[in-house]
Amino acid sequence: MSNPTAAMLVIGDEILSGRTRDANMHFLACALTKAGIDLVEVRVVSDDPDAIVTATRALSGAYTHVFTSGGIGPTHDDITAENIARAFDRNIGVRADARAILQDHYDRSGMELNEARLRMARIPDGATLIDNPISAAPGFTLENVHVLAGVPTIFQAMIASILPSLTGGAPLLSQNLEIHRGEGDIAGPLGQLADKFKDLSIGSYPFQRNGAFGSNIVIRGHDGAAVDAAMTELAELFTQ
Amino acid sequence: MSNPTAAMLVIGDEILSGRTRDANMHFLACALTKAGIDLVEVRVVSDDPDAIVTATRALSGAYTHVFTSGGIGPTHDDITAENIARAFDRNIGVRADARAILQDHYDRSGMELNEARLRMARIPDGATLIDNPISAAPGFTLENVHVLAGVPTIFQAMIASILPSLTGGAPLLSQNLEIHRGEGDIAGPLGQLADKFKDLSIGSYPFQRNGAFGSNIVIRGHDGAAVDAAMTELAELFTQ
Repeated sequence: MSNPTAAMLVIGDEILSGRTRDANMHFLACALTKAGIDLVEVRVVSDDPDAIVTATRALSGAYTHVFTSGGIGPTHDDITAENIARAFDRNIGVRADARAILQDHYDRSGMELNEARLRMARIPDGATLIDNPISAAPGFTLENVHVLAGVPTIFQAMIASILPSLTGGAPLLSQNLEIHRGEGDIAGPLGQLADKFKDLSIGSYPFQRNGAFGSNIVIRGHDGAAVDAAMTELAELFTQ
Repeated sequence: MSNPTAAMLVIGDEILSGRTRDANMHFLACALTKAGIDLVEVRVVSDDPDAIVTATRALSGAYTHVFTSGGIGPTHDDITAENIARAFDRNIGVRADARAILQDHYDRSGMELNEARLRMARIPDGATLIDNPISAAPGFTLENVHVLAGVPTIFQAMIASILPSLTGGAPLLSQNLEIHRGEGDIAGPLGQLADKFKDLSIGSYPFQRNGAFGSNIVIRGHDGAAVDAAMTELAELFTQ
């Protein structure tokens, strides 16, 4: 029984030009790992309609869930919603329930729900709204694609809104052992250990500290007893 | 005359599980922008042979350059080199020049060039070595794919090794104006400005500070005079 899978699609020129450092990928990776959903692929594309459509179709067809980040605000460069609709050949237009959420929010804050802000009420046919407790403008789920804001606080709040409704699998468990020897010295026995525990993922992440080489060995898997057993053998190999 | 394009392929379970926060994407984005090479797409895939081959072929065919990050160390989970070779149907084996670099490095540091470390001298047929001034083990360029280490200091040093040899275009220039009004208030005129300057990319990045809404408007382009002109009009629109 394997876990549900997920991909992330980050949309935004500002990430690719280096102006902004993406923060949502790391947050989502941690949240999904905890929920027992395996994040298998991430793509970052520019604010380009065809790039969004192509990536959405590819990822939606390959994984249980797709999470998108960015491009659902009120300005001309916010083109995510219409291109997610296009990826599934759906129409998109201002929807009454989304409009009501925005109307209520702007009434309370004394701002006008003008034409630009109304863009944020455009929802593809057949989509379900995702609650945005920070700034009201909703995300949406269409088929298996969850369309979320790019601003990190809002992205995180939207993830909190939908994650409980998604069926997770066994959480990915991990244990870590720091070994103060160079990777080249431990690689042989480590490879044999990885061969023996084929259902686990055993990773080696080298570091250099105060001029000495070392490596963090991380053992990951969904079966806690197997992770324990492999970690015991690892410790016996390298800590005498 | 348009700029050369680039994609990045990040390889590593540790990024997708959230154990490690990728730092190389942001560094590469900034370095390429400065060099006049447009980073158009990034993909992150797991330590999976087929995922690496598929992504390498797709990105290599679509862009001028591909930069990979991760998976070229001495341990069993370092599978990048052999799968880049496979993506181009090349053989891979220990190469004399790469072996000599490692031999020299380990002789000087009093360590043994064992079987595991020798894995790092495996280079696909026809590849060019990339200098690694930090820890010796070289990266390589095969066709239009530059294969680099995942450890950030080494990744950055390797980028410094190859970037001067790549032909860049006009650097991407950008100017920024912080506007203390909500995105919804400025979206209309901003969209008209973007329509007028179609060769520029005009992005709006909202923020909330001390309870007030604002947005950073970033104007990017390769033509400095056009960026100046658009920025002048932008300032006139919103700073009265």
